[in-house]
Amino acid sequence: MQKQPIGVYGMGVMGRNLALNIASRGHSVSIYNRTQDLTDEVMAAHPDAGLVPTATLEEFVDSLQSPRRILMMVKAGAATDSVIASLKPLLAPGDVLIDGGNTFFQDTRKRNEELAAAGLHFIGTGVSGGEEGALKGPSIMPGGPRDAYELVAPILTEIAARAPDGEPCVTYIGPDGAGHYVKMVHNGIEYGDMQLIAESYAVLQSVLGLSNEELAEVYTDWNQGELDSYLIEITAQIFRKRDDKTGQSLVDMVLDRAAQKGTGKWTSQSALDLGAPLPLITEAVFARVISALKSERVAAAKVLTGPAAKPFQGDRAAFIESVRRALYLSKLVSYAQGFAQMRAASDEYHWDLRYGEIAKIFRAGCIIRARFLEKITQAYQHDAGLANLLLDPYFRDIAAEYQSALREVVSTAIQAGIPVPTFSSAIAYYDSYRSERLPANLLQAQRDLFGAHTFERVDAEGSFHADWS
Amino acid sequence: MQKQPIGVYGMGVMGRNLALNIASRGHSVSIYNRTQDLTDEVMAAHPDAGLVPTATLEEFVDSLQSPRRILMMVKAGAATDSVIASLKPLLAPGDVLIDGGNTFFQDTRKRNEELAAAGLHFIGTGVSGGEEGALKGPSIMPGGPRDAYELVAPILTEIAARAPDGEPCVTYIGPDGAGHYVKMVHNGIEYGDMQLIAESYAVLQSVLGLSNEELAEVYTDWNQGELDSYLIEITAQIFRKRDDKTGQSLVDMVLDRAAQKGTGKWTSQSALDLGAPLPLITEAVFARVISALKSERVAAAKVLTGPAAKPFQGDRAAFIESVRRALYLSKLVSYAQGFAQMRAASDEYHWDLRYGEIAKIFRAGCIIRARFLEKITQAYQHDAGLANLLLDPYFRDIAAEYQSALREVVSTAIQAGIPVPTFSSAIAYYDSYRSERLPANLLQAQRDLFGAHTFERVDAEGSFHADWS
Repeated sequence: MQKQPIGVYGMGVMGRNLALNIASRGHSVSIYNRTQDLTDEVMAAHPDAGLVPTATLEEFVDSLQSPRRILMMVKAGAATDSVIASLKPLLAPGDVLIDGGNTFFQDTRKRNEELAAAGLHFIGTGVSGGEEGALKGPSIMPGGPRDAYELVAPILTEIAARAPDGEPCVTYIGPDGAGHYVKMVHNGIEYGDMQLIAESYAVLQSVLGLSNEELAEVYTDWNQGELDSYLIEITAQIFRKRDDKTGQSLVDMVLDRAAQKGTGKWTSQSALDLGAPLPLITEAVFARVISALKSERVAAAKVLTGPAAKPFQGDRAAFIESVRRALYLSKLVSYAQGFAQMRAASDEYHWDLRYGEIAKIFRAGCIIRARFLEKITQAYQHDAGLANLLLDPYFRDIAAEYQSALREVVSTAIQAGIPVPTFSSAIAYYDSYRSERLPANLLQAQRDLFGAHTFERVDAEGSFHADWS
Repeated sequence: MQKQPIGVYGMGVMGRNLALNIASRGHSVSIYNRTQDLTDEVMAAHPDAGLVPTATLEEFVDSLQSPRRILMMVKAGAATDSVIASLKPLLAPGDVLIDGGNTFFQDTRKRNEELAAAGLHFIGTGVSGGEEGALKGPSIMPGGPRDAYELVAPILTEIAARAPDGEPCVTYIGPDGAGHYVKMVHNGIEYGDMQLIAESYAVLQSVLGLSNEELAEVYTDWNQGELDSYLIEITAQIFRKRDDKTGQSLVDMVLDRAAQKGTGKWTSQSALDLGAPLPLITEAVFARVISALKSERVAAAKVLTGPAAKPFQGDRAAFIESVRRALYLSKLVSYAQGFAQMRAASDEYHWDLRYGEIAKIFRAGCIIRARFLEKITQAYQHDAGLANLLLDPYFRDIAAEYQSALREVVSTAIQAGIPVPTFSSAIAYYDSYRSERLPANLLQAQRDLFGAHTFERVDAEGSFHADWS
């Protein structure tokens, strides 16, 4: 009997679509699901796709060429542990297990170590692009032992998205949890991008009173320039969509209560652990949390007052351009924070991440795909040791040129009572980071006064304690 | 031989001072330290204080009345586990172990469960007030079994700080980790208070060019009014202090690199876990992190530009009053967030916290002691189920009256290039929380478009998915 070069465990929508993607490149794929029904369903829908159904775990494992390559697409957490435990006794040293779920990177680090002790290769990989990306070409972020990666690299390269220059959106990220970590930060950045766009929408709508049709025009226009990206593109599309039920603009019928699945939260929590400043994405995570308090907000709106509405007096086109600049600079600040966090993680976990390559594989397949990512790649090509993207000439020059617009938009929004948590966090970070001197000397003086925590001096090395009375 | 009503394990500065505090109330106290030297040192310094030294763990435990009460003052983490493990075989059912360290509340929850299984009582208590508070009267936040608390309540009540009305600053907080949780949030609030004061300092110094002498006057003045608090008082004191070495103002000689010990970080991480919005304190934690990147900031200051300095044109006294109002309203917003987080934790962990009582015991002994805390107590006396402090009439009215000042100060700072991450986060939260409608409808539309995550509608119950093309 012919054996397959790879098997996919888990026939949920992501597993199914990845299996179909692999098969579409001419590789037969063994498939397995804990319950037979999903396997039958996939085979019924795609009888001639090159998928080979298996009914038992033993049959699944036996159907694979050696070394076996198994892509697990199951729910992150306990389910992943249980699948690994059931597969482990059936595998042989040198086999490769790939976890393609949104797994917490510390779990991947632990599993990597445990499976290495059993002679098995473990790869934790980020897969971004949703259902459609899985089927047609996702951005893939594999982490694990380098030699294990080489065993799966040919297939991953074939199924990955292609950047505009034809390069596949997959690269070896680094050891153990590196792939899942980068996917986590990718998702955190996505939270930031989405909240920034939401704030630009709120400002344009509230200050200028733009209709959804006008908003669609604005985002379409922005998508022609340096903001060119998937999220801006779909934003324009969303503002054009009519509701079948009411005939209204569909976005107006959508409840303003944002959900989340936890990767944004993890990104912020990891930033706090690493001591890497990530205020913008964290404000974006909290903005979703506040949005979810819908009934509290409805009650608060009746009690808490805001400024009186004032008609906009300035040049409307100029203000729209200011919002565009505010959005773009805030986005650069957000990526500067996210990439600085990856750098802190790389140092902490000894991953030796290549930031320019990471930006490259974000160029297609994934949700944050955008033209401007090439600027990040170029920045690290110029200086692989760059401490912060804002120090790169391109970023620096955009900041110099656009900061007055960001300051204007934040001020205008705050005076008008429009919440702009990530816009204002962006300018606060920019001004903090470029401050040779911050008022933290006062914090240290306070800490020394009330807790004898000591302080450093500007004019001498060492730790000092003073009697402040 | 006479036995003592309580013993203190750990003769570091906090353990020593708490033992002296207890002894000063007329109770003899057994003391023990892992190494004999510290015990000897304490006895040499305080031979007649009522402390009874013990040389071995057995002697220490034997020297205590039954049920034994042991206050552990050791480093949080592994040291606490090791002390518990060494004491456990020597104790009898009904004995009470008290952990007075800055322990992570989840550790306290775990230890509580483990020790309860062995018939032992475990109390995790927050102790705030630093060295001096420990000696003269700290604010005490005990959590654990209620009947165990009753066994130590008389002594804790005697050694606690007294509020201005004479009430002791100790109360039963709740089961298992509740005491350490409330102490953690107290510390997070402390981070917020300190960063807010630091930003008021930066604005007054940069916009008005106030000297340290003038700043001392301003904070002294503010301390007479509604901002009356320990942190404002010591801020004024700090601006008056001269450096013995240079004759300069000492605060100017302190390096602007803030340190932290982790409780602020834990507060933010817990908020993220609970889905409780805590943006202000989190910005304060990140502000310390950015301040610590001193060498990066010095380099960035040479590269990243800001707005040109403009001389202040307005009324100086009016602007100082605006900064005071901005600080006070931001402080209210910060406490509203911190108390809402306690509420979320109370729901999650079934603690049944009494927020008004918690505000009461913050009134003296601890770092955040302040006159305005009575407003919090009153708010919960009016409405024990208050969802958010901002909805209380006092908070609501201050917000109505002071928000224009906060908007003005943030705008002015942002236009001048002065980083005000917590001031701007305060107004963003206020405006978000009072928004009946936020732009999160766009986020949900995006999530449904790219990930089929579904959305809710404003006009119907249920989950919906649309074809957005």
